[in-house]
Amino acid sequence: MSELDRLFMDRALELAARGVGSTAPNPAVGCVIVRDGRVLGEGYHHRAGEAHAEANALAAAGDARGATAYVTLEPCNHVGRTPACAQSLIGAGVARVVIGAADPNPKTDGGGIRALRDAGIRVDVLADARAVQLIEPFAFAVRHDRPFVALKMAMSLDGKASATQGTTTAITGEAWRLFVRDLRIAYDAVMVGAGTIRVDDSQLTVRPPSHRLRPYTRVVVCETDAVPASSNVFRGVADYARTIVLAPAGARERFGELDAVANVTFVGAASDAQLDLRAAMRALRDAGVQSVLCEGGPTLGARLLAGGLVDRVYWGVAPRFFTAPRAVPVLAGANLATLRESVRFDRVEMIGEDALLTGRVHV
Amino acid sequence: MSELDRLFMDRALELAARGVGSTAPNPAVGCVIVRDGRVLGEGYHHRAGEAHAEANALAAAGDARGATAYVTLEPCNHVGRTPACAQSLIGAGVARVVIGAADPNPKTDGGGIRALRDAGIRVDVLADARAVQLIEPFAFAVRHDRPFVALKMAMSLDGKASATQGTTTAITGEAWRLFVRDLRIAYDAVMVGAGTIRVDDSQLTVRPPSHRLRPYTRVVVCETDAVPASSNVFRGVADYARTIVLAPAGARERFGELDAVANVTFVGAASDAQLDLRAAMRALRDAGVQSVLCEGGPTLGARLLAGGLVDRVYWGVAPRFFTAPRAVPVLAGANLATLRESVRFDRVEMIGEDALLTGRVHV
Repeated sequence: MSELDRLFMDRALELAARGVGSTAPNPAVGCVIVRDGRVLGEGYHHRAGEAHAEANALAAAGDARGATAYVTLEPCNHVGRTPACAQSLIGAGVARVVIGAADPNPKTDGGGIRALRDAGIRVDVLADARAVQLIEPFAFAVRHDRPFVALKMAMSLDGKASATQGTTTAITGEAWRLFVRDLRIAYDAVMVGAGTIRVDDSQLTVRPPSHRLRPYTRVVVCETDAVPASSNVFRGVADYARTIVLAPAGARERFGELDAVANVTFVGAASDAQLDLRAAMRALRDAGVQSVLCEGGPTLGARLLAGGLVDRVYWGVAPRFFTAPRAVPVLAGANLATLRESVRFDRVEMIGEDALLTGRVHV
Repeated sequence: MSELDRLFMDRALELAARGVGSTAPNPAVGCVIVRDGRVLGEGYHHRAGEAHAEANALAAAGDARGATAYVTLEPCNHVGRTPACAQSLIGAGVARVVIGAADPNPKTDGGGIRALRDAGIRVDVLADARAVQLIEPFAFAVRHDRPFVALKMAMSLDGKASATQGTTTAITGEAWRLFVRDLRIAYDAVMVGAGTIRVDDSQLTVRPPSHRLRPYTRVVVCETDAVPASSNVFRGVADYARTIVLAPAGARERFGELDAVANVTFVGAASDAQLDLRAAMRALRDAGVQSVLCEGGPTLGARLLAGGLVDRVYWGVAPRFFTAPRAVPVLAGANLATLRESVRFDRVEMIGEDALLTGRVHV
C-alpha cells in the first residue's frame, strides 16, 4: 500500500463511519474516486435500500474515466434493491479499484473482484485491519446462525464490577461513557440481563442521541424470572424499537405482564424453565439482529462466555480498587476455568482515565 | 524542545538506562556532549562511588568548549566521593546545559542549575516525562522514610490470580515474563509475602542474569508465621544479597530456624504478633533499600494498598478467564472499597499477548 493509497483508504473509512449504525442489515461502506491525486467524488452507504457507497461516489464524481476507486468493502456484483456496484464501476470506466476488505459473504465468493478483473480493471485488495473490523459483525452474521456478540464490562483493577452488592458504583469516567455510547450506536442491539435491570433500571438509550437512522433495539435476557413491567427499559422512546425480552418457554406464565410493554420472545421447549442462551441468540438473529452489545451483568456475561457465545470483549478497567467482603466480581455464576476460549487483544489503550482492553474471542 | 534537543536527550536516556539497577543509592544518569550537531562524548553513571555521567562524557569529549551538555538529571553541585559535576561542566567551558529532570533532593534545591546559570551558562530544564520516571524511586526515597513501593500483579480478565487455590497457574505469556525480569533489575529489591513462598517457592532471581553490578536483595514478608528454611528464596546465589525476612517482633520464637539462611529483621514491639507493614517498609529503607518491587501475593498486595504503602502499580492482564468456585482473586483479605487512593495510569499497552496497565498511586 503506497502512502497515497493509505491516505485515500483512510478517507473512505472516515466516510464509511458516517453510516455506522444506520445501514443494517448491510455493512457500512465508504468510497472515494480519485484521479491524478485529486478527489473527484466521495460517497458512503446511508441506509439499507438506498444507494451504495460506490453509486454515491460515482454520482458525485461525474466523469470517472481512468480514475481509481477506493472502497472499504469489495463491491457487490448482484442486483438487489440497487444496481450491482462492480458493474457501475466498470461502466464508469475506472482504471483501478482499491478494496479495503473482501466481501465475507460466502454467496459472493469474490464475485465483485472477479467481475472487475475480467473487465480489465486493476484490483488491489488491502485486507486493511480497520476495514476488516468495520464489517466484523456483518462478516460474522453472514456465516453463522446467531448474531455477533460483544461483551462490554467495566471493572476496578481488582476485578470488581461494584463495591457492594445491589448497588451501582460509578466506576469508570466520562470518556468511557462516551466510548460506550459510540459502541451502542455501532451495534444493532444493546442487551443486559434481568439482574442488571433490577439493580440499575437503565433505559439503555444513546444519550445524546446520534444521527443513527434506524430504530435501536434493546434486549433483556431473563434466564428464569421476569423483570418489572415498570422498568425504564420498557419506556417508549422515539427512534427506539420495542424492547425484546428473551424468556424461557417453560416460564411463560411469569411473563404475562410484560406482553403489553415488550416483544416477549419465548425460547426453547415448553419444559424449559431456564433460558437456552444459544437458542436465545438464534432468536435474536431471526428478529433481524446481526450484532449485539451485551453490557452485563456479571452472571449473563459469564454464562455467555461459558456457552462460547462471545465474539469480542470490550473490557474497561478503572484505576481504583474495590476488594471488600460484599464487592461484586465482574463475572460470576459460571465456571470459566476450564474454558478453551481466550482473547486476542487488538487494542489496549487509555480511554480518558480508564483503560480499554478489547479483542476477539478465539476457541 | 527542538527536534535536535529531543534526539540528544533520547540518547542520554538510552545511556542512563545502561546504569539502571547498578547505581543505587544514586539514580541512573546519562550524558551526551554535542557541538554543532556532532556528538563529542557520551557517558553514564556506572555505579555508586564511581564517576558521574557528566564526568565520563566530558572525559570522552576532550575539548568541550562551547558545546551543549545533555544530561538526564540536574548536575550535582556538591563534592562527594567524586567532584561536583556542575563545576566540571563550568570548568570545561560548555555553553549550554539541557537537563531532563531537576534534582528531586530537597537538600540540592536547584543548586546545580543555579551554579551553572551564575557561571553564564544557558540552562534548559525539560521536565521530560521519561527522565522524571527514570528517577521516580530515587525521587521518592529522598523525600520519605520508606522505600518507593511498586506492586506488580498478574491476573485474568476477570480479576483472578489463579484458577484454583494453592496452585500456580501460568497466566501471562513470555513477553510479560521478560518485562518482569527488566522490572526486577530496575528495583533495589524484589518482595513477596510468605504465602507466595509457600505456594510458588520461587527463587525470585533474575534469569537470564543481567549486567547489573550490585547484589540483588530479595525480601520475604512474614505477617505472622515463618516460611520453611528450605525455601528456594534462601538458596545462596552469586551476586545476590542474603534474603531479608521481615517478621513481627512478637513472633520471634517462630523464626529461629531462618536465622541461619536469612537476615531476619524483627519489626515493632515485642508484643506485636502481626507485622506492622509501614514499620517493615521503614526497616527496609534503613537496610539501604530505596525501591521495592512487590510481586504479591493477593493478601500482601491488598494490605500494602490498604496501608497506603503502594506508589506505583504494574498490572498484567492476561487474555483469559478464570472465574470458578476455587479461583483466587488478585487481591484479598483487606477492605479497599473505602480506599481514597486511586491510580493515574501513565502507560497502557500490550506486552506480547497480555496487557500492561501501570501508573502512580495517588491519594
